[in-house]
Amino acid sequence: MATVDSGIFVGPGALGAWAKNILIKVGVGDADAGVVADSLLAANLRGVDSHGITRMLGVYVKRLELGLMNPVSRFDIVRERAATALVDCHNGIGQLGARFAMEKTIEKAKRSGAAFVATAHSNHYGAAAYWAMMALEHGMIGFSSVNAPAAVAPAGGRQPMFGTNPFAVAVPAGRDIPFVLDMATTLVARGRVILHAKQNKPLEPGWAFDSLGRPTTDPQAALKGLLAPMGGYKGYGIAFAVDILSGVLTGSNFGRHFPGMLAENFETPTDVGGIFAAIDIESFMDRAEFAARMERAFAEVRGCAKANGVERIYTPGEIEHEKAGERARTGIPMPVEIHQEYVELGERLGVPFPKA
Amino acid sequence: MATVDSGIFVGPGALGAWAKNILIKVGVGDADAGVVADSLLAANLRGVDSHGITRMLGVYVKRLELGLMNPVSRFDIVRERAATALVDCHNGIGQLGARFAMEKTIEKAKRSGAAFVATAHSNHYGAAAYWAMMALEHGMIGFSSVNAPAAVAPAGGRQPMFGTNPFAVAVPAGRDIPFVLDMATTLVARGRVILHAKQNKPLEPGWAFDSLGRPTTDPQAALKGLLAPMGGYKGYGIAFAVDILSGVLTGSNFGRHFPGMLAENFETPTDVGGIFAAIDIESFMDRAEFAARMERAFAEVRGCAKANGVERIYTPGEIEHEKAGERARTGIPMPVEIHQEYVELGERLGVPFPKA
Repeated sequence: MATVDSGIFVGPGALGAWAKNILIKVGVGDADAGVVADSLLAANLRGVDSHGITRMLGVYVKRLELGLMNPVSRFDIVRERAATALVDCHNGIGQLGARFAMEKTIEKAKRSGAAFVATAHSNHYGAAAYWAMMALEHGMIGFSSVNAPAAVAPAGGRQPMFGTNPFAVAVPAGRDIPFVLDMATTLVARGRVILHAKQNKPLEPGWAFDSLGRPTTDPQAALKGLLAPMGGYKGYGIAFAVDILSGVLTGSNFGRHFPGMLAENFETPTDVGGIFAAIDIESFMDRAEFAARMERAFAEVRGCAKANGVERIYTPGEIEHEKAGERARTGIPMPVEIHQEYVELGERLGVPFPKA
Repeated sequence: MATVDSGIFVGPGALGAWAKNILIKVGVGDADAGVVADSLLAANLRGVDSHGITRMLGVYVKRLELGLMNPVSRFDIVRERAATALVDCHNGIGQLGARFAMEKTIEKAKRSGAAFVATAHSNHYGAAAYWAMMALEHGMIGFSSVNAPAAVAPAGGRQPMFGTNPFAVAVPAGRDIPFVLDMATTLVARGRVILHAKQNKPLEPGWAFDSLGRPTTDPQAALKGLLAPMGGYKGYGIAFAVDILSGVLTGSNFGRHFPGMLAENFETPTDVGGIFAAIDIESFMDRAEFAARMERAFAEVRGCAKANGVERIYTPGEIEHEKAGERARTGIPMPVEIHQEYVELGERLGVPFPKA
């Protein structure tokens, strides 16, 4: 989420093209590399740097070079019915499985009104919003979620058993910007705790537990311990539900069976599952009427009387939408360490990192 | 949720039969009255008294007698595709629309693998879990959600714009009890604040805001103000998403357009929408394999190392499941005021309330 303010900004077009060429150098096909780079760049543009090129590309390259993730995708539809499919991704790059699955979801929702597709044996797919938002241009409501290495204990526990298991919902809103909710089921993202650790800043109470399950505001203790699920047992329940659908139901990893955090485990594939759903709006209401109702709902929410000290009320996804406009102009900010790492990566692979 | 401890217990069979007969007296058909009574009784058995006979029946009777809710149900399928349907409930009792919709969902999921059905122009349908759990005996994962009169502000706001908008997910788990998550998107239920108000007990910090949007622990101020969404802006986003699917998409009420709380507004119909989904497990995995994986996931979660002072880790729905076993033996506890009210209601309608 947060960005270390280094003063280094890179143009989105140049950064995306560089990321694509780096992926090609480590064995990813041209079109596939473009899909992965675009999804990561979109996260950077929206201000979600935890899922952007500036955090994930180096991890992906390392996993591809170590043979922990297949650069060439192969998809098998293991089971299929009118409104469902299970896609075996054979340890390919998460974005490629997600795109395949969401395209399948949209195609099925066009025919059946709604559809639910799951991926098995896949990898980190970037920000969930990107896949849910694929539904928007088809006049559909999109949904996506994914499980992840364990960082959260069940209510009352002190061992990690669930990932941050994020999910996203995207809804078109006529001439307004879309509704885009993309959230981890923890109170705060792990990336935010990492940032506090780097800056030696205490956490806010309630964010995390130490390895004995005691509440802590020490970011180092939290990183060895647990993230708090949002709303206590409620977040635990949602994370568990996501794990069941993404992991248990797809034959992928679930619960405590993950080999460690993505950026820390470089020994085994992650083997995550993902879920994708779409609802064709016309199955329920004419698009124009729905658009008008969404525009009205948005106007009413933004017009809500404000609490003291609040200047503006945002619809879900509005901050990210505005951030994308801003960053298209300013470029993508880069922490100085990442910039240095990527300059070296570019030199090693013969794809010079673009000038800031 | 919580129950005032009056020492009065009524046998579930007798309570359910009484509720059914009361509903028949106010114009509900025999079979329909049985469905409504059973759904309310199930909530009482599971300890969810906020959605049980002991809280809701009196409200339903009043609304039926005032002509605010139709005792005789009529359902029109307004739009229908292979995996979707929109059901107009014509202001019928919420439970009857929910049952019709969930039966349709299951039937469609049997044919298409998964299905998504919505109800329009309906009423309070009891606990969401009851409808999600209908999927279980069909080897399916069930889901249900509903919007409700506004009690929650958007992040930064101080006017109610969203209901507690609960949702439920039910998953069969082989020989184990099912996974049943049923939760409001607020940090605590409104019923809990009402109970604190009755007992003059302060709220815990973070539960609620007063009418100016300031945090408060005063239950009276909270009842005139706002409930806090769980996880701050995350709960706001989820409540909004539920409102879009249940209200905006179905043509029912949404946002701030509700006429007031169910037990406070006796002037106009509530006009809520609901959503129902089912996923046939066999679309993704053989039932036996899924059952074995769920049993394993449950065993691992229950076996998680416990935080200090914690005796046991529960799977979602386990507490309610055990409560149902207990209350089947002890009977349903009744607050003394409700008992008195129901004795009088029984006298008025010629259906004597069962002896405790």
